[in-house]
Amino acid sequence: MASNLSFVLNKPNDVTFEERPVPKLQHPHDVLVAINYTGICGSDVHYWQHGAIGHFVVKDPMVLGHESAGTVVEVGSQVKTLKKGDRIALEPGYPCRRCGSCLSGRYNLCPDMVFAATPPYDGTLTGFWTAPFDFCYKLPDNVSLQEGALIEPLAVGVHIVKQARVTPGASVVIMGAGPVGLLCAAVARSFGATKVVSVDIVQAKLDFAKSYAATHTYMSQRVSPEENARALIEAADLGAGADVVIDASGAEPSIQTSLHVVKMGGTYVQGGMGKADINFPIMALCLKEVTARGSFRYGSGDYKLAIELVAAGKVDVKALVNGVVAFKDAEEAFKKVKEGQVIKILIAGPNEKIEHGMDTSVDEQKLKEAQAAGSTGCC
Amino acid sequence: MASNLSFVLNKPNDVTFEERPVPKLQHPHDVLVAINYTGICGSDVHYWQHGAIGHFVVKDPMVLGHESAGTVVEVGSQVKTLKKGDRIALEPGYPCRRCGSCLSGRYNLCPDMVFAATPPYDGTLTGFWTAPFDFCYKLPDNVSLQEGALIEPLAVGVHIVKQARVTPGASVVIMGAGPVGLLCAAVARSFGATKVVSVDIVQAKLDFAKSYAATHTYMSQRVSPEENARALIEAADLGAGADVVIDASGAEPSIQTSLHVVKMGGTYVQGGMGKADINFPIMALCLKEVTARGSFRYGSGDYKLAIELVAAGKVDVKALVNGVVAFKDAEEAFKKVKEGQVIKILIAGPNEKIEHGMDTSVDEQKLKEAQAAGSTGCC
Amino acid sequence: MASNLSFVLNKPNDVTFEERPVPKLQHPHDVLVAINYTGICGSDVHYWQHGAIGHFVVKDPMVLGHESAGTVVEVGSQVKTLKKGDRIALEPGYPCRRCGSCLSGRYNLCPDMVFAATPPYDGTLTGFWTAPFDFCYKLPDNVSLQEGALIEPLAVGVHIVKQARVTPGASVVIMGAGPVGLLCAAVARSFGATKVVSVDIVQAKLDFAKSYAATHTYMSQRVSPEENARALIEAADLGAGADVVIDASGAEPSIQTSLHVVKMGGTYVQGGMGKADINFPIMALCLKEVTARGSFRYGSGDYKLAIELVAAGKVDVKALVNGVVAFKDAEEAFKKVKEGQVIKILIAGPNEKIEHGMDTSVDEQKLKEAQAAGSTGCC
Amino acid sequence: MASNLSFVLNKPNDVTFEERPVPKLQHPHDVLVAINYTGICGSDVHYWQHGAIGHFVVKDPMVLGHESAGTVVEVGSQVKTLKKGDRIALEPGYPCRRCGSCLSGRYNLCPDMVFAATPPYDGTLTGFWTAPFDFCYKLPDNVSLQEGALIEPLAVGVHIVKQARVTPGASVVIMGAGPVGLLCAAVARSFGATKVVSVDIVQAKLDFAKSYAATHTYMSQRVSPEENARALIEAADLGAGADVVIDASGAEPSIQTSLHVVKMGGTYVQGGMGKADINFPIMALCLKEVTARGSFRYGSGDYKLAIELVAAGKVDVKALVNGVVAFKDAEEAFKKVKEGQVIKILIAGPNEKIEHGMDTSVDEQKLKEAQAAGSTGCC
Repeated sequence: MASNLSFVLNKPNDVTFEERPVPKLQHPHDVLVAINYTGICGSDVHYWQHGAIGHFVVKDPMVLGHESAGTVVEVGSQVKTLKKGDRIALEPGYPCRRCGSCLSGRYNLCPDMVFAATPPYDGTLTGFWTAPFDFCYKLPDNVSLQEGALIEPLAVGVHIVKQARVTPGASVVIMGAGPVGLLCAAVARSFGATKVVSVDIVQAKLDFAKSYAATHTYMSQRVSPEENARALIEAADLGAGADVVIDASGAEPSIQTSLHVVKMGGTYVQGGMGKADINFPIMALCLKEVTARGSFRYGSGDYKLAIELVAAGKVDVKALVNGVVAFKDAEEAFKKVKEGQVIKILIAGPNEKIEHGMDTSVDEQKLKEAQAAGSTGCC
Repeated sequence: MASNLSFVLNKPNDVTFEERPVPKLQHPHDVLVAINYTGICGSDVHYWQHGAIGHFVVKDPMVLGHESAGTVVEVGSQVKTLKKGDRIALEPGYPCRRCGSCLSGRYNLCPDMVFAATPPYDGTLTGFWTAPFDFCYKLPDNVSLQEGALIEPLAVGVHIVKQARVTPGASVVIMGAGPVGLLCAAVARSFGATKVVSVDIVQAKLDFAKSYAATHTYMSQRVSPEENARALIEAADLGAGADVVIDASGAEPSIQTSLHVVKMGGTYVQGGMGKADINFPIMALCLKEVTARGSFRYGSGDYKLAIELVAAGKVDVKALVNGVVAFKDAEEAFKKVKEGQVIKILIAGPNEKIEHGMDTSVDEQKLKEAQAAGSTGCC
Repeated sequence: MASNLSFVLNKPNDVTFEERPVPKLQHPHDVLVAINYTGICGSDVHYWQHGAIGHFVVKDPMVLGHESAGTVVEVGSQVKTLKKGDRIALEPGYPCRRCGSCLSGRYNLCPDMVFAATPPYDGTLTGFWTAPFDFCYKLPDNVSLQEGALIEPLAVGVHIVKQARVTPGASVVIMGAGPVGLLCAAVARSFGATKVVSVDIVQAKLDFAKSYAATHTYMSQRVSPEENARALIEAADLGAGADVVIDASGAEPSIQTSLHVVKMGGTYVQGGMGKADINFPIMALCLKEVTARGSFRYGSGDYKLAIELVAAGKVDVKALVNGVVAFKDAEEAFKKVKEGQVIKILIAGPNEKIEHGMDTSVDEQKLKEAQAAGSTGCC
Repeated sequence: MASNLSFVLNKPNDVTFEERPVPKLQHPHDVLVAINYTGICGSDVHYWQHGAIGHFVVKDPMVLGHESAGTVVEVGSQVKTLKKGDRIALEPGYPCRRCGSCLSGRYNLCPDMVFAATPPYDGTLTGFWTAPFDFCYKLPDNVSLQEGALIEPLAVGVHIVKQARVTPGASVVIMGAGPVGLLCAAVARSFGATKVVSVDIVQAKLDFAKSYAATHTYMSQRVSPEENARALIEAADLGAGADVVIDASGAEPSIQTSLHVVKMGGTYVQGGMGKADINFPIMALCLKEVTARGSFRYGSGDYKLAIELVAAGKVDVKALVNGVVAFKDAEEAFKKVKEGQVIKILIAGPNEKIEHGMDTSVDEQKLKEAQAAGSTGCC
């Protein structure tokens, strides 16, 4: 069998390639998948740089990566829905299926979740991967494996937009125009939002957002959150405020502004990661009867819908990819992401042949714009 | 016709009694109500002391009071559901009935609300009052007019508990054991919560809460919110956290603790008023996918349910009343509330005869306990 | 002022034109509207033919029509959102604003509803009409008055699809390809349904549905409902059944099939009118835990969303209009609708000038197809 | 180890006792349970009499029974929440945990459900039983094993009342006063319903219902459903109709009446089993915008809540038990249930010692009343 070369984080800023044994099917419901492409998430970069996120600390060497698509190479005896050769998007977190969260349909909140590239569990920047069949989603013919690797961040956006209960005709403000903010904008449009306002502090990112999915953009100002909100509402003609505000930035001023932008009785969702505690306009939440929700990863139905949105042409994930690099160039790709030179970059699996380090199908101008825009958000 | 003496706030700490003309029915759907009893809300005391709450500023003399029950003395030509002599609880805020909030069933969010004793509108500490018939709720025979005056704060509690989506079997933690916190506890029990934990910093209030509606109490500690939450969860045996946390205190440490006490996927409702901006554990909300909601006054169905809960014996509002004073003693009553000597005190209407300034039916021991406990919360 | 000629139903099959006095504003929140265009609904035709629908019986002469758009000619003293000259879509039913249904946001269920052309209330096939300002919806510049007259049936479709809780990615089967069924298909697409199956017994109607909004069509078979459902599921590749089934036909076999087509845990909405009692597969509803809902007219937010869908280009209502006739030709138009020669036909207001009886902008081929297809459904 | 005597249905009306091998733990998450008590469900009796329910046909000998409580005798290596000696209520249906229904929190709709005493799967009238630990619910100290055997039918009632979205203050009409109807009444009360109307055609059953949980009763009349509904509404003073109607009878006239009793915008739930197709007032559902839902078995959280309701003293399940018989008398017990002589009868496990065939703790008068009332409903 082919190589199971893996991209291993030993400690902060110390990565190596390691040939590991190809995993074997442990359970009759599992499938073995050859990894074709993997995207880099902000959390991967954060582990690489800092060795920890919150109380998740990398103590032993850990394979990075969790945004992957692959090809089925073997199926367990109980697997009926997949067969060898099927192209799949890989959901990288496996819940216990037995706790209250799992049984009530919110498996993303399972306390015993085994999630790829979250210590102590290895990730998907490797040759082969085993997963339960129901977390492997067959890609339709018109969705490529490179697009398949983008299903993970798109599912993050789908989950956020579902948490926000975006309905047709809604006005939606999205703080942050990084990968997740952009995908939220596209998903919100596909949910029927008629006004989608992307907010950021970098003009190039706003320009891209406008060309991508936003109907309006707003450059956040260094003024009080109330003033910023008033200016945003006026600029985007939001009347008494936005039906929905999504924070995909994690930035304190953005979150503060969110609560002043949302209308009476509206909904605000916290999708971006940032400081654990911030100064927060709690009385705005109380007196306007805002519904606030957190959003964490993705759950039941999110991958399925993400794939349908791509297959139906409603969300263009390819537009976010600035390049594809060979597995051996993985560290180089991490550097590009860290430096904000790209929106999304894919790393080919170790058994994948690509002619050169950077996919020539990428439009040079688009790349330049994206590099200007950069991205520091998670996913 | 009898006196329409009114209790008027001229400016902070300056109140007078004023004989005003009896109002006339302006609309065929209106009824004229003689006020029998009025409770004092924390907001009344706040206007009396400070002349303003947030951007609501008392510029012209304003009649105080909005927690009232009365007796119908005249009905408009289109009123079919009420007749002269009916005893009613008075909902004191009148929405426009025409905006998006009103038409979609959330009239408490109406931007054109006319609310009693919220500047510039006069309140109900007066002899007679006109109101649209559908905001006057006939009291069942087994609910007294004094209980009727408590329906307003009970409706506040009903609305909060509805916002919290309390379901049978739920565990509910309630921060603050003032009048609203106590009523939330009683309502949560009536909604089927099997565990209701009252939290406060005054032991006497906790003791009263335990005797009133709480299944457990917890004395809040001067430690970090995380530690406080851990100790609370352990003390009340809440396992992975509470299904629902209600803040009825408005206090920053309570709100911070709330987010650490609520379980993964649980609900937190902000019902108490306090500082506009506070330090807030936003990542706890995000990563646990907490649903947070504000609660503002009361809306569709809340008065009706509040009355049913009293009529069915599920919520005892009388237990919160420490005394009834004559109208002429209104300022004295305000002082008692300000000083925290009582939970609830009622002011009889100017045409109501009461034998002495303090209802003798009040149990002395209960009064002493309540005085010890005091209350500073709104409502 | 101009003519207030009205199209009056005296008794079944007996209509006359009558010059009535121009109505005056009765209330400071009212506006006076000159009617520009009015569509014909199946219920109008039914009253014309039979003089009654259920327990609604035409006892006195009644003006017909309720699907109208018009132009504001006068506003009451309290009207701030509209001004003379504004082009509006007219919501033709006025609830009491005071009952439990109204206050809880479901005004379409108001028992005291005053609805145009529902006895004993006159309709909108007249010159001038008064309405409360909040039931007059200003049309954006890119929505014509003729499209404005189609907002009423579109709002019916919006309400049905909302009752069906159609979410992005859903599969939706719609029984009946008359005007309401077609509009439901278009609305379901705009709500993100990825599969919309129109079902009918007339091939020409299915052909039009496919060209209009359906992704799939199915010709209903004269077999048992179970067999029909199996064939439909197979034809449209619905797997374990449709997420949502909408009956817009009112036909007994369609309703029976609906319950066998919907998946476990799916939703079925009854939108079409038909026989009061039918043979119904109740155990399918029980054992599959189907959620069934009725849909009646439209309510809060439906007109607003309908207009946004047209303005945003998501629903094409013009495609359903086969012609526009002068007011004097109203009876002729009713005949065409009765005979099923058209999908939708508009009647110009009595003060509207149109050059000839039939709008030449209508594509002849489309007209012929539509005539072949015809329609007998309500709205 | 002790006896694993099992009560086996060979074919209609042909049951035998059979000593079968004690099952072994197959999975590290399983536990082995000694069965203490098992209740008899209408479905058990139906299989015994007819050998089939719908398309579920008993082809091979099948052990009957699925309403059981037992004691843990062995736990698998991965079981952390249970230990030997724990007394448990046994949820008798095991879903696949991998399909869309399971992952979205509706496991009762799993198409691959393995359910006790539903062919081809054996039931729990046996000595020992294995089950996944998360379907075994530890009984609190104040809940007996005999009560534990009643948790299954109570969970059916909990699920129905949840499907009905009963909220505090609601009026609830329940068609049928058999075991499930009675339990629904008790659960509805515990959910805060202030009016619970039990409807039946047997006065003795209504008398029991009134003494048990109903606030009102109504003897169904042999008149049209509309007339029956009017009389019921008047008798129970339901105003414009009931907020919620639950059919726990499966009888056609009851279901028809249900749709005429429910108010505009109300909810009707089909909980009882009966004829597959019935004459149904579909236009009442449509025009009143009724929400109808089926209810099938029980799902996430239902067992947990059922136990809490018993532990908290909110639902008295003991009152429904007319006697306990030894395992050897199982067929006798089936006969009593078939003949409608009892509400609920329990069969002790084969290793359980009971002094005599009928528990002397049962009140003679209560028994007589119950025998008069009888029961034919499922569960």
